[in-house]
Amino acid sequence: MNKQQLIDNIRRKQTFLCVGLDTDIKKIPQHLLREDDPVFAFNRAIIDATADLCIAYKPNLAFYECLGTKGWQALEKTVRYLREHHPDQFIIADAKRGDIGNTSAMYARSFFEDLKVDAVTVAPYMGEDSVTPFLGYDNAWVILLALTSNKGSHDFQLTADAQGERLFEKVLRRSQQWAGPDQMMYVVGATQGRMFEDIRRIAPDHFLLVPGVGAQGGSLEEVCKYGMTKDCGLIVNSSRGIIYADNTENFAAAARQAAQEVQAQMAVQLKAIR
Amino acid sequence: MNKQQLIDNIRRKQTFLCVGLDTDIKKIPQHLLREDDPVFAFNRAIIDATADLCIAYKPNLAFYECLGTKGWQALEKTVRYLREHHPDQFIIADAKRGDIGNTSAMYARSFFEDLKVDAVTVAPYMGEDSVTPFLGYDNAWVILLALTSNKGSHDFQLTADAQGERLFEKVLRRSQQWAGPDQMMYVVGATQGRMFEDIRRIAPDHFLLVPGVGAQGGSLEEVCKYGMTKDCGLIVNSSRGIIYADNTENFAAAARQAAQEVQAQMAVQLKAIR
Repeated sequence: MNKQQLIDNIRRKQTFLCVGLDTDIKKIPQHLLREDDPVFAFNRAIIDATADLCIAYKPNLAFYECLGTKGWQALEKTVRYLREHHPDQFIIADAKRGDIGNTSAMYARSFFEDLKVDAVTVAPYMGEDSVTPFLGYDNAWVILLALTSNKGSHDFQLTADAQGERLFEKVLRRSQQWAGPDQMMYVVGATQGRMFEDIRRIAPDHFLLVPGVGAQGGSLEEVCKYGMTKDCGLIVNSSRGIIYADNTENFAAAARQAAQEVQAQMAVQLKAIR
Repeated sequence: MNKQQLIDNIRRKQTFLCVGLDTDIKKIPQHLLREDDPVFAFNRAIIDATADLCIAYKPNLAFYECLGTKGWQALEKTVRYLREHHPDQFIIADAKRGDIGNTSAMYARSFFEDLKVDAVTVAPYMGEDSVTPFLGYDNAWVILLALTSNKGSHDFQLTADAQGERLFEKVLRRSQQWAGPDQMMYVVGATQGRMFEDIRRIAPDHFLLVPGVGAQGGSLEEVCKYGMTKDCGLIVNSSRGIIYADNTENFAAAARQAAQEVQAQMAVQLKAIR
């Protein structure tokens, strides 16, 4: 999916919600454990209940890998299901990969050629040649970690160099030499509040993938106030707040309701840029 | 495996070689493609040919993930084979993971509870709470990226803060508050030469996992000169130089010969600390 298609989807559906598929077999409703593939059954139900309210899904690879081959199958089936039944969805593999060139090239092959997702999250620590192998595909995106939502983001990301430039700012600035806003996005945690102002000074046109609304405590209003662009420029993720809204047989309807509440707030925010 | 066992293995076998299982189905000998599981068949032959010459194996997750469920199976079989037939080997999942706490906890579960490896490589960008979930297991190690072997290591890892401390030094220093040398190692590329001196000033007792000898051009002698401790303190990895020494039916014998050459050089270096 290219940038214009993503923007069109946001305007048409009046939402910039990404539903995080952090599907934990220990947390899904009991009755699904009778299914052949409980993780896929859960995902399919969540997707069908929320697809008109969001523009992206973000499976978190950790939750699939921890089930070994079964988890990997559930992931493949989930992506294929999205492609077949909800082709307007932007699919993000939240993998936070990044390695030396030939290894990153293998990861890129997995995600873009085999799994066929639209975007992969990548960690910047190893620099340019760990990121660029992900950039050799059409309509495929790198979402680079910039300023994350967790407490540990303060350990290294905020360290300023002798000129006062903080590490996350250096990542934003330098990575723009590797790809433009048509191929790269950045992860910025919703918990970072006014830091979105600083980020928009360096990356005014890039889409930002924003985790941390909901369970992690970030505010949608604040994110929009400081981070929204004329094209929206935001994909705001919610995982636990939506997919685990309820863990009875009513889980899909409850997920839908939780997504509806977020979508309604997003529609209000989008009015500001009409 | 604990630190003393690792040191004992190094002394007994007179080697600190790690063989990197970067098994690429496109590079393995043609005749193996007739096997049910060519990747596992290749790994098993390489392992049996080299196990007395090395103390560790390091499957690189990218090369397994790119084959989807089949790759994951080959990885599981490889680890199980090592556990059953070569229980003195230290097994490193080269995964370079790192995510918010609950996600890192899922990765830790995959690697330490399900796959049952000894160590996982972890990227430090997201800070403390992305690393500590990997530290909750007995005799299980985090190998944190410090100064990597690739060109991109210069992009961010060498950036100095206002006090002159470089990012990789900050990672070495701060992460020592999270775990000691009995549970944490660091990745330092063999291409970094004299930087090993700086690293030993901050981390005198930690084991270092050193990629970059061989195909990437690092020198074993230089690594030992500046990085070796009285307990050796080094695990030097070679992947392509050993496993792809030959791609005919003779590949395993050729891998053995390549490993033998490295082991002989290592035995010479180990004499210095006897």
